[in-house]
Amino acid sequence: MPHISLPEGLPGISSCFAFRPETAKPMRELAHVLLHEPGTLSPAERELIATYVSSQNDCYFCQTSHGAAAAAHLGNNADTVAQVKHDFLQAAISDKLKALLVIAGQVQQGGKHVSSDSVQKARNLGATDLEIHDTVLIAAAFCMYNRYVDGLATWQPHDPAMYASMGTHLAEHGYITPSAKAEDKVGS
Amino acid sequence: MPHISLPEGLPGISSCFAFRPETAKPMRELAHVLLHEPGTLSPAERELIATYVSSQNDCYFCQTSHGAAAAAHLGNNADTVAQVKHDFLQAAISDKLKALLVIAGQVQQGGKHVSSDSVQKARNLGATDLEIHDTVLIAAAFCMYNRYVDGLATWQPHDPAMYASMGTHLAEHGYITPSAKAEDKVGS
Repeated sequence: MPHISLPEGLPGISSCFAFRPETAKPMRELAHVLLHEPGTLSPAERELIATYVSSQNDCYFCQTSHGAAAAAHLGNNADTVAQVKHDFLQAAISDKLKALLVIAGQVQQGGKHVSSDSVQKARNLGATDLEIHDTVLIAAAFCMYNRYVDGLATWQPHDPAMYASMGTHLAEHGYITPSAKAEDKVGS
Repeated sequence: MPHISLPEGLPGISSCFAFRPETAKPMRELAHVLLHEPGTLSPAERELIATYVSSQNDCYFCQTSHGAAAAAHLGNNADTVAQVKHDFLQAAISDKLKALLVIAGQVQQGGKHVSSDSVQKARNLGATDLEIHDTVLIAAAFCMYNRYVDGLATWQPHDPAMYASMGTHLAEHGYITPSAKAEDKVGS
């Protein structure tokens, strides 16, 4: 049961966004720029970073919804998503993304954990300053989103079909507008 | 030395914001709504929550700049700011704010650390749902800002006058526009 009276029938962060639209707007915009707008890291790669950090923070809603978005971007490849969460060094992803996930994991532990060595390794594998920046900020931002979702004890249903639908919607449309399809499904 | 080539002469998060204006915009807006716009928690109380979380995350730039903003709101009362960071239960603040700082400290550790008991205690001392929500989100957001500032190893000068000037500017104008006064001072 949520710690405060959040709107019912909306899963995870959707209920927080409905409760406080003034903060939802910039939070949606930030996610949209970081995860969905064009960039040299693919949306799949950026969703995998978000999924990995959310799994390290043990946030069921975020790791499942962003994992579904990553899988949708990868042609419904849920195996790679599961492998990234379990042991990304063994996953079928590029060495550059593995190096960026190391940095993301350090950010999750705390900003001062990011080492010059891990940044240099990512750079040696072709990561640009902007890609390193976005990796750090995606990881930092999910330390916020995860704490928001769990810190208010939001309702987080365990319905794989709902997350699959949400992931497809997010992969196609991004984060600026509410995930109407997923919310309709839950409310129906 | 920063991990990436950030613009020189801008302290802390200002250099990150200049590097990536697309993400700076929603990050500034979120801080402005949470810390500066009218609310039933005073700006001083909200800046103290931000300062406390930043000190728990050991982020020098954020705890010093937001501590200076809190002090400015409190009529240049730096003693209360220092006491909140050191041991807020002994600080000259309301019991309601102490209860909210307990919740903020739990969010800093992780979303699942927030207990129903600590929420109930805050409610018994008069905290509303919106105040509890904003406390959780301020604490979560500073787990992002702190990681962003330290995760990129930004330049963080130790000049008390610069932070005092920045704090006054933030207390007066908020977060949407760049803190021109503070930046001019650094660049001069």
